[in-house]
Amino acid sequence: MEARNNWTKRAVEEAEAVASISCSGHGRAFLDGLLGVDGKPICECNACFQGPDCSHLIPNCELDADSGDPMFLEPFWLKHAASSSVMVPGWHRMSYEFNDGSLISKELKSQILKLHSFVGNANTSGRYIIFGAGATHLLNAAVHALSYSSSSSSSPARVVASVPYYPVYKDQTEFFQSENYKFDRDTLSSKQKRDFSSSNYIEFVTSPNNPDGQLKKAVLEGASVKTIYDLAYYWPHFTAISTPADEDLMIFTLSKVTGHAGTRFGWAIIKDEAVYQRMVEYMSLSTYGVPRETQLRVLKLLKVVVEGKGNGIFEFGFKTMRDRWRKLSNILSMSTRFSLQELHHNHCSFYKKIKTPSPAFAWLKCEREEDKDCLEVLKSEAKITGRHGSLFGAESNYLGV
Amino acid sequence: MEARNNWTKRAVEEAEAVASISCSGHGRAFLDGLLGVDGKPICECNACFQGPDCSHLIPNCELDADSGDPMFLEPFWLKHAASSSVMVPGWHRMSYEFNDGSLISKELKSQILKLHSFVGNANTSGRYIIFGAGATHLLNAAVHALSYSSSSSSSPARVVASVPYYPVYKDQTEFFQSENYKFDRDTLSSKQKRDFSSSNYIEFVTSPNNPDGQLKKAVLEGASVKTIYDLAYYWPHFTAISTPADEDLMIFTLSKVTGHAGTRFGWAIIKDEAVYQRMVEYMSLSTYGVPRETQLRVLKLLKVVVEGKGNGIFEFGFKTMRDRWRKLSNILSMSTRFSLQELHHNHCSFYKKIKTPSPAFAWLKCEREEDKDCLEVLKSEAKITGRHGSLFGAESNYLGV
Repeated sequence: MEARNNWTKRAVEEAEAVASISCSGHGRAFLDGLLGVDGKPICECNACFQGPDCSHLIPNCELDADSGDPMFLEPFWLKHAASSSVMVPGWHRMSYEFNDGSLISKELKSQILKLHSFVGNANTSGRYIIFGAGATHLLNAAVHALSYSSSSSSSPARVVASVPYYPVYKDQTEFFQSENYKFDRDTLSSKQKRDFSSSNYIEFVTSPNNPDGQLKKAVLEGASVKTIYDLAYYWPHFTAISTPADEDLMIFTLSKVTGHAGTRFGWAIIKDEAVYQRMVEYMSLSTYGVPRETQLRVLKLLKVVVEGKGNGIFEFGFKTMRDRWRKLSNILSMSTRFSLQELHHNHCSFYKKIKTPSPAFAWLKCEREEDKDCLEVLKSEAKITGRHGSLFGAESNYLGV
Repeated sequence: MEARNNWTKRAVEEAEAVASISCSGHGRAFLDGLLGVDGKPICECNACFQGPDCSHLIPNCELDADSGDPMFLEPFWLKHAASSSVMVPGWHRMSYEFNDGSLISKELKSQILKLHSFVGNANTSGRYIIFGAGATHLLNAAVHALSYSSSSSSSPARVVASVPYYPVYKDQTEFFQSENYKFDRDTLSSKQKRDFSSSNYIEFVTSPNNPDGQLKKAVLEGASVKTIYDLAYYWPHFTAISTPADEDLMIFTLSKVTGHAGTRFGWAIIKDEAVYQRMVEYMSLSTYGVPRETQLRVLKLLKVVVEGKGNGIFEFGFKTMRDRWRKLSNILSMSTRFSLQELHHNHCSFYKKIKTPSPAFAWLKCEREEDKDCLEVLKSEAKITGRHGSLFGAESNYLGV
């Protein structure tokens, strides 16, 4: 039998041992990592590095800029280890539900409200909040809920977005093959068709936009149009905060605030009670909620974000993204072959000053007529891979990196 | 700036402080619990108890036997705190993917294989494994994958189950309103109709069955029938293990092995590669995988299960369930008004002996003709609430508790 006192000792020893493994700054060892011959976790090397301590650069390695993995925030959390680490006891929240019968932690909900009030990026007053497994999960929950609420017309709701759009909108909407919604096309063609009377529309608005970082507003309007605001990037890391967003349905994700993409946590802020209830039902029948250890960890992480105030993660995140953008802009300003999206300096209510651009992605254009496939050009000329323009509904002379 | 050494101290102090709060054995305080006036988490009381330390029994409180919350295993984890608790560093696995590009931990996968080999309840050799947010998530992923793989006939696959069946099969299948599958009816009516040529069928087989604990086999057969084996309860807690299950698609969930229902973790063992690939795509577009802190914790918990061998959690779980069943059977054996399902003593390959029944649920029948609604009878006569027979596709003189 185990001793009831000192029950945290073994977990501490294991965590400290793994944290002390050095991977040369080009990798990391994890508690649940693969084990070496001595039974201890080994270094997991970043792309283009190898060796037991990740110190060897792989020659001619192709740079993969294919996804928006927010690992740029990892150094912040290494520095704030003491305040952000959490001990999960073996008996932590085993039940299906919280004590009030819900699937969400009240403390975490109130921490999220504090976060929005601190940053000033969303109006949460009088709204409903729901948690999901990242924005990914919430996007489909929202489409499902809004398509259900449309009038009993027999034709499915048409799901649309403006080019260039985040590829998951189309992939996900088509994958689930629902009777109630179909991915239709881009907003512009829908607007030209003007057949709003015959169908209901669901428009995705991404602001700042993935991939080009532009601030956006809904394009379609009218009684038959419902809108989902994907505000994943509306944080001081990536853009100036103008005013608190005040839309009917807004989606945020932890991965773009704290960088914890692997934690699969997001939330939606919803005005209409009926839509909220349908999203609650979706979560209940899809996954029965977000894991309780995930909710515990997110609470801890968001406390650090809010405690840190302006000198904390937003300062670190903004400076990192701004410096990257400056470097990239400088390099490409000398090129006539490639160009970048144009981004403006805007006033930020969080920083209370004009901010220079600091987008998460570059939206690259190949300017030469013969460079029809920009992805291939970059691959063969610079050994960099990215996301093909066509994935975003755009021409192939564009590229997301 | 925080000190880099001793980074685990704060998390340990917080966890130990919360663990030391006494709630009279009728509740528990949690790290992310509601806070009292002193800013510390307060006791969250079990149903029918109240007060600051949960010591007050609420008079005339109705007993809720409405769900299968596996809290009976909590005492085991309190006793094994030292080996089952885990420290999650702030920087733990922030990336979208594991190093091999997948969404699942290789160490956890190999721990699950060890578990099945130890218990002898599933043949995993040469199979694919996928993780999901509990069985709930995997059930729909399986239906989606199997309906997609059916031939290009225009009619949707018919999803069926044998009465009494787990209510989520129907609720979930209907909720997602897919073009590719519909909940049809029970297996018996399908068999009588014998229209297997015109449609594809997907049969849910639950063994042991929820709610009645019976061991089951597929009812439908033929080239147009695909089967999903829900083996959530096929563990030594709840039944004798006869042979390793060897089906095309088998679903298991952590909640019924370790009792961690709130952790939302399950896995599927799949024979066919194409079906596996479609389930991988489903997970990718639905949630982008199970949170990494969840996978870390599950690894830790399953290590305790396997290390504990026969004297560990299965011994504890079996004895608890057997004793409950004995008590219930004894009480009801004196009644002519209520009867219980009949369960057999079977040989268990895990215990290498004949085992007495130890089911998770009772499937109660009201025997009197006038007691048409068994739920209402139990509510008014005994202040116990359960799940209405009709939810399981059965008559209302049945009740799941």
